[in-house]
Amino acid sequence: MLITDLVDVLGAAHVLTDPDITVSYETDWTGAFQGRAAAVVRPETTEQVAAVLRICGRHSMPVVPQGGNTGLVGGSVPAGVAAGAVVLSLRRLTSIEPVDAAAGLVTAGAGVTLADVQAHVRAAGYGIGVDFAARDSATVGGIAASNAGGERVLRHGMTRGQVAGLEVVLADGAVVRRLSGLPKDNVGYDLPSLFVGSEGTLGIITRVQLRLVGLPAARTTALLAMADLPAAVDLVALLRATVASLDAVELVFGGGVDLVCAHQGRLAPFPGRSFPPDTPYLLMECVGSTDPTGDLAAAVETATGVLDAVVATTATDRERLWTYREGHTAAVNAVGVPLKLDVAVPLARMSAFVDDLRGLVRAMAPSARLHLWGHLAEANLHVNVTGLDRDDARGREGLTEAILARAAADGGSIGAEHGVGRAKMAWVGLSRSPAELAVIAAMKHALDPAGLLNPGVLVPPYGHGKP
Amino acid sequence: MLITDLVDVLGAAHVLTDPDITVSYETDWTGAFQGRAAAVVRPETTEQVAAVLRICGRHSMPVVPQGGNTGLVGGSVPAGVAAGAVVLSLRRLTSIEPVDAAAGLVTAGAGVTLADVQAHVRAAGYGIGVDFAARDSATVGGIAASNAGGERVLRHGMTRGQVAGLEVVLADGAVVRRLSGLPKDNVGYDLPSLFVGSEGTLGIITRVQLRLVGLPAARTTALLAMADLPAAVDLVALLRATVASLDAVELVFGGGVDLVCAHQGRLAPFPGRSFPPDTPYLLMECVGSTDPTGDLAAAVETATGVLDAVVATTATDRERLWTYREGHTAAVNAVGVPLKLDVAVPLARMSAFVDDLRGLVRAMAPSARLHLWGHLAEANLHVNVTGLDRDDARGREGLTEAILARAAADGGSIGAEHGVGRAKMAWVGLSRSPAELAVIAAMKHALDPAGLLNPGVLVPPYGHGKP
Repeated sequence: MLITDLVDVLGAAHVLTDPDITVSYETDWTGAFQGRAAAVVRPETTEQVAAVLRICGRHSMPVVPQGGNTGLVGGSVPAGVAAGAVVLSLRRLTSIEPVDAAAGLVTAGAGVTLADVQAHVRAAGYGIGVDFAARDSATVGGIAASNAGGERVLRHGMTRGQVAGLEVVLADGAVVRRLSGLPKDNVGYDLPSLFVGSEGTLGIITRVQLRLVGLPAARTTALLAMADLPAAVDLVALLRATVASLDAVELVFGGGVDLVCAHQGRLAPFPGRSFPPDTPYLLMECVGSTDPTGDLAAAVETATGVLDAVVATTATDRERLWTYREGHTAAVNAVGVPLKLDVAVPLARMSAFVDDLRGLVRAMAPSARLHLWGHLAEANLHVNVTGLDRDDARGREGLTEAILARAAADGGSIGAEHGVGRAKMAWVGLSRSPAELAVIAAMKHALDPAGLLNPGVLVPPYGHGKP
Repeated sequence: MLITDLVDVLGAAHVLTDPDITVSYETDWTGAFQGRAAAVVRPETTEQVAAVLRICGRHSMPVVPQGGNTGLVGGSVPAGVAAGAVVLSLRRLTSIEPVDAAAGLVTAGAGVTLADVQAHVRAAGYGIGVDFAARDSATVGGIAASNAGGERVLRHGMTRGQVAGLEVVLADGAVVRRLSGLPKDNVGYDLPSLFVGSEGTLGIITRVQLRLVGLPAARTTALLAMADLPAAVDLVALLRATVASLDAVELVFGGGVDLVCAHQGRLAPFPGRSFPPDTPYLLMECVGSTDPTGDLAAAVETATGVLDAVVATTATDRERLWTYREGHTAAVNAVGVPLKLDVAVPLARMSAFVDDLRGLVRAMAPSARLHLWGHLAEANLHVNVTGLDRDDARGREGLTEAILARAAADGGSIGAEHGVGRAKMAWVGLSRSPAELAVIAAMKHALDPAGLLNPGVLVPPYGHGKP
C-alpha cells in the first residue's frame, strides 16, 4: 500500500496525512488554489526522494513537488488534475556546502531558503545574483524549478543564468548530477538549463549549484515620482545608456505606495507632498566599487518629467525605500484575494499597454480595482485585480484572457517571471506556437512517460483557452 | 528520387553532387575526418531548410548540418555512420537584421560568419560576447550548435549565455521560433538553451539572436613569461581576485610560441631573450572604460615567478601579442596532422595534470611531440600531439583514452569547448553518468525519432570506449 511503503522509507513522522497538518501544503500562497493531498512526504536526502518517486511510480501516483510554496501560479499544490496526489516537500533538504571561492560557486540542498544561502555566501564576502521579496520562504529548489526573476535580473539575468549545476531525481528514481563546477564542460545537452524553469514536470531538483557574484562596496537607492509613464520609460533608456552601475529599476504607482503606507502604518515617501494614484514612481538602485550616487544624480538631472526624488545611501534608508516596493504584495492581499497576472511587453509598448489595461478593467469589471507594479527595466509588469466576484469564474477568466491576449498582441509574454503553473495553462498558446508546444510535450513524454510529475502544470493539453 | 526532389526545391545550382566540388564539404578542417555525401545542398531560406528536411525524411536520408566547417571534432562532415548522408550547408543563410540597441540584441542568419556579425554590431558601437581565432569562417549557426567557447568566456561565458533566441527547423520540417527578445518570458521549457550545444542532433539552427555587449573604451594586453606552471596558476587566482577589468588569461608555452614565430617568420616576443620550450607564457587582457594598464601592472608587480613581460596598449601591438596565441593552430598543423584533444581540469589540478600528460605522451608515444595551449582562466587546455603514426589507429585511440581518462579522474571534462562530435564519442561515458546518457538518448529520440539528424554525433550508442 502506498502509505505503508512511504512510511517504510521515511518513517511515520515524515508521511503526513492528518488534514489539519496537510492543509498548509495543499493551499497555495495566493489563496487561489486549494488542493487535496493523498499524503505529504518530507524526505531528508536525495536517496529518499528517489525512493519516494519509485514508490509513487509503482502505485501510478502523481507527485507534486513543493519548496517554500511561495509560487504565484498554483504550481506547487495538488489542485486540478493533481488533486489527490502526493505532495513531495523538499524543505528538509537543507544541507549547504562551504563557499567555493576559487570556482565562484556554492551548492545547496533544494530546501535551503534564498535568504539562508544569501547569508551563507555573504559571510564569505559574496552575493547571489537572484533576489526578491519572498526570500525568507522561497527555496533554492523552487527558484530553480520556476526560473525565478526578481529584482536583480537587469544585472544578472533570470535564475537560469545563475545556476551552474543541478542534482535532479528523474521520474524513475534515477539521479542526474551536473555539479562538476567546470566553467567549460561541453559534453552533451545542457540538462541544467532544461530542468531550470520546468516547474517540476521533468524531474525533482534536489541540489542547486549557484554562481557567486561580487558584493558591491557601495549602493545608492533613489525613489522618483514621475510626471507620466512615457517619461518613466524614457528615463529607463537614459539610465541604461549612461549609468553603468545600474542594478534595478522598479516601477510602482502612487496608489500602490499609499496602500503600502496604510497597510504598514508608514509615512509617505515624499515629505509634505502627495501625488495622484496613477503617478508612476521609479525605485532605482546603482551599485559600484565606488559611490555611484554621482552617476545616478547626473542622469536624473538631465531627465525630464521628474516631479520629486529621494535618495538613500545608508542601509536603513535604502531598506525603507525598498519597502514601498516590496510591501505591495502583502498590502494588495490585505485588500482582497487578487487575480494575479504577470506579463512582459516590449518597453516601447509599455505606456500604451498600461492605458489599454486600465480601460479594459474599467470596461469589463467596473467595480474592480487594478494594482500595477513591476520590474520596468525588464519590461515586466505585475497585474493584480481586486474586488472581483470570487464565484464568477467565467468573469475572471474573461478578464484574464483579455489582458493576456492584449500583452501577446503587443509582442509580450503571458508569464514573464511567475511561469505557467496551473493558473496560466489555458493561455500558453498565446505565447507559444503549436510547434513549440509539440516539442514541450515530446520532451515531457520522453522524461516522464507516465505523466506523474506535477500533472496539470506547464505541459499540454492546455485546457479550454485559445490554444 | 531524392536528388530530383531536392533540385525541385533548391534548383540544380544548389544541389551539389560533383565530387570535385563536394570534397571540401566532406573533409573536416582538422583533416582527421573524410566523409562522403550523397549531395551537398545549399538552401537560402528557412523554408528551404524545412523542405530539405521533409524530403530527406521521406527518403530516410540522414542529414549532416554544416556551417563554416571549422569544428574540431568531426561533427560537420558525413563520416562514420553518416557516410552517404546529405550535407546541409547553412552558409547561404546570410541575412542580418539591424542592431536593436534598445533590447541589446542582434539577429543573424545561421550562415553569417562571426567576424561579419562582429563588424555589423561594431558599426553601431557594440560587441559580441563570443570571439575566437576562426572568426572569419565560423558561422553563428555553428557557434550556437557547438556552444563555442573561445577567448571571452571569462567575462561572458560560453555561447549559450549569449544566445537570447533561436529559430530552429525540427526533423519533421516544423519551425520553432523564439525570437521575442523579451528579457523575461518564462513560458515552457527553454528550447534555445537545449538546442545550443546539441551539435545538429535535435534540429537545424537557421537564425540566431545574440546579445550585444559593450565595447570597452580601453584595452591592455600583456604577455608574461612565467617561471613555472604553478606560478602561472597562482597569478590567475591573483588576477581574478584583484583585477576587475580582467577579460582573458590565455596559456601558451615557449615551444609553441617558437613554432608560431618560425611558421609566420615573426620575431620572438621578448627582445634579446629566449626561454626553454616548457616555459609557460600568459597572454592576458584587461578592458575598461578607463585605461586598465595600471590595474594589471599592479597585480603583475606583486606576483612571483614573472621572468619577463611585454605590455601592449595600441591595437597593432595588441594584435601582435594575440598572434602568438592565435597562430598556434596553423603552426601546429604545419608540423603534421595532430591528434587534437580539448580538456578541462580544475585549476588546482592543472599543473599536476600537465606533468602527468607529458609523462604519459613520453611513455606511450616516445617519438611524438606534445603541443599545449589553452584558456587558463577557465581551466581549459588544448592538447595537440603530432608525429603519431596515422595508420596506427589503435595507438592513437590508446593515447586519447589515457589522456581523457586522466582528465576525467582529475574531475575534468573530456570536451571542454570543442564538444563531442564524432571524435570523442567513444569517451563520453568518462564525463557523463549512465543516467545522463539515458536522458540525452530519450531527448534525441523525442525530437528525432528516425535518427536522421547528424547520426553518429553526441548521442548514444557511444561506440567501443569505456562507457
